[in-house]
Amino acid sequence: MPSAQEIYASRREKLRSALRHRNLDALLVSHAPNRYYLSGFELHDPQPNESAGCLIISADGRDWLATDARYQDAAARLWPQEDIFIYGGNTPADLARLLRRSGSRAGIEAKGISLHFARRLSGAVRGLWLEAADGLVERLRCIKDPGEIAALERSFALNHKLMHWVEGELIPGRSEAELAWSIECFFRENGAQELAFASIVAVGPNAALPHAVPGETKITDSCPVLIDVGCRMEDYCSDQTRTFWVGETPTALFQRTRDLVLEAQDAAIRGLRPGLPLAEAYRLARAVFEKAGEATAFTHGLGHGVGLETHEAPSLSPRGLGVLEAGMTVTVEPGLYYPEWGGVRWEYTVLIEEDGARIL
Amino acid sequence: MPSAQEIYASRREKLRSALRHRNLDALLVSHAPNRYYLSGFELHDPQPNESAGCLIISADGRDWLATDARYQDAAARLWPQEDIFIYGGNTPADLARLLRRSGSRAGIEAKGISLHFARRLSGAVRGLWLEAADGLVERLRCIKDPGEIAALERSFALNHKLMHWVEGELIPGRSEAELAWSIECFFRENGAQELAFASIVAVGPNAALPHAVPGETKITDSCPVLIDVGCRMEDYCSDQTRTFWVGETPTALFQRTRDLVLEAQDAAIRGLRPGLPLAEAYRLARAVFEKAGEATAFTHGLGHGVGLETHEAPSLSPRGLGVLEAGMTVTVEPGLYYPEWGGVRWEYTVLIEEDGARIL
Repeated sequence: MPSAQEIYASRREKLRSALRHRNLDALLVSHAPNRYYLSGFELHDPQPNESAGCLIISADGRDWLATDARYQDAAARLWPQEDIFIYGGNTPADLARLLRRSGSRAGIEAKGISLHFARRLSGAVRGLWLEAADGLVERLRCIKDPGEIAALERSFALNHKLMHWVEGELIPGRSEAELAWSIECFFRENGAQELAFASIVAVGPNAALPHAVPGETKITDSCPVLIDVGCRMEDYCSDQTRTFWVGETPTALFQRTRDLVLEAQDAAIRGLRPGLPLAEAYRLARAVFEKAGEATAFTHGLGHGVGLETHEAPSLSPRGLGVLEAGMTVTVEPGLYYPEWGGVRWEYTVLIEEDGARIL
Repeated sequence: MPSAQEIYASRREKLRSALRHRNLDALLVSHAPNRYYLSGFELHDPQPNESAGCLIISADGRDWLATDARYQDAAARLWPQEDIFIYGGNTPADLARLLRRSGSRAGIEAKGISLHFARRLSGAVRGLWLEAADGLVERLRCIKDPGEIAALERSFALNHKLMHWVEGELIPGRSEAELAWSIECFFRENGAQELAFASIVAVGPNAALPHAVPGETKITDSCPVLIDVGCRMEDYCSDQTRTFWVGETPTALFQRTRDLVLEAQDAAIRGLRPGLPLAEAYRLARAVFEKAGEATAFTHGLGHGVGLETHEAPSLSPRGLGVLEAGMTVTVEPGLYYPEWGGVRWEYTVLIEEDGARIL
């Protein structure tokens, strides 16, 4: 197995090829997961609107890690001292000068940089041409390498363990918020670094809300409970959903809905393979709902990439562009929602392999 | 007490005055805490680079809440149905059209909007002039109203309780990471919604790192432990630091350092009052370290505002502009750091009142 440092370096080499292909002298990497993917430096920024630092990846091979004094020590553990830049009073001007050293044409991540910062950057030095070059790192991140797949497998193993455990915790009288906290403790006490995203625990009609926040609604002795949760383990996110029925016998409506959702999920997973257009993946599930006359209750896309971020490329939506490729990890999460009583979503994440999709 | 809805409405009225003063027909509010402050809608975005929605506050009095279908239900609980806009395929174009309805001159939060989004927004409709208008909401947020002060008091009361409890948890053999998780559980099980920021638990020399990540370093039977933690309660953040000595007698070096830090903190808190320039506040503490010949070990600013965000305006740094005003809540957190053995930071948050500063 290559070392972590070798893996980061080889990712930077791949990015360098992409830069040369785009005729860019350098790329300013601002988006935190991209920065981390290429360097191991700080997966998270300290808060929205506050950066932990950025990378400058140059076509000529000299790469900079630029950060502020707080992170000097963390940077020194990862990067050659002579290529660490500690910025001070005027960060955009400092970065513009560093970019200018690599050449005159620099790419920036227009989605990962504020308008305010971009303006200050572009006015700072002469002879530097900045252009939007989004998605170059995200493109690399789509295809997971063996180390990433191993980390994802462990993150999903814990997620499966959670789903097995949580069924016994669906006790009438417990509130969504209480159960959400138990879930967080289970993840953390079993090795997760953090939650991958805010847990969804939705009882009864709340299950129909795609963005249900766990509240004081209590589990009854006969209700659906939708649980959509993920943890981060070895830096990689997991993301799964189940919809349980609490009580003796589910209603016929619930049973039919769950059967349909599982059928749609199965149809999609069986159809996923390298080369399949992303929008086609969505249609595999939708076709099942259309046949049953329930397609209007399927109100979101089929899935999304999962990796260092819970939501990343590619998107399995009706508007998704591109095709599936081996090494992609995507959720398959059809759902049907009915505001009167709730709904059902079932979510697995699959790894696209040469001959199809394997559930993680 | 006014209702939450009345409070949000009165904040929007204040913002409207500021818009008229700036000659703006509307402001697009993108930064999540600003959005929440003015509407109660979604304090957090789902992840970096993914928005839960935005507000359009118009000088003419018609305010829009624009979001995607996931949040329709949450929006309907807060906003008149006819002023909710659900965007679909081309969000920037939709928002530009809404802004154009309010007039021809719209402000945007250039720090809270990506370059990518701003470009699409500015190219979308004719006759719409966009200009950077950052800080208008942040300016209002600086001065806390009675309800905010009450929430902050409860958040800090729990933080004090934590600091009292944690002293008994400093048991030799425990790792920083174990203690950090105990702290998180204490906060959550005593009513906090979440951590306000990632806890810092730093043993020995790690205490010298301003950005120490809790790791496997274990508490010994004779060492300093720096604990910098905060929780969110009733939406408001608390933020406090203590540096404890574990073991019978602290070293003379530790004792001298702690005495100096407490002296600097006390000098600053006694000097804070409305009208004091922010940079002066910093110098009150620094003067104590200078007199003792230790000023080079004071490597960061004196403090920052605390409210819906852990780090918000104003900044008590040597470069801080403006003056303290009654109703501001700021941290006072001098520290001295020595890479060989660690360091000491002590942090209170104070409310600026007419006649001085009161520790929260």
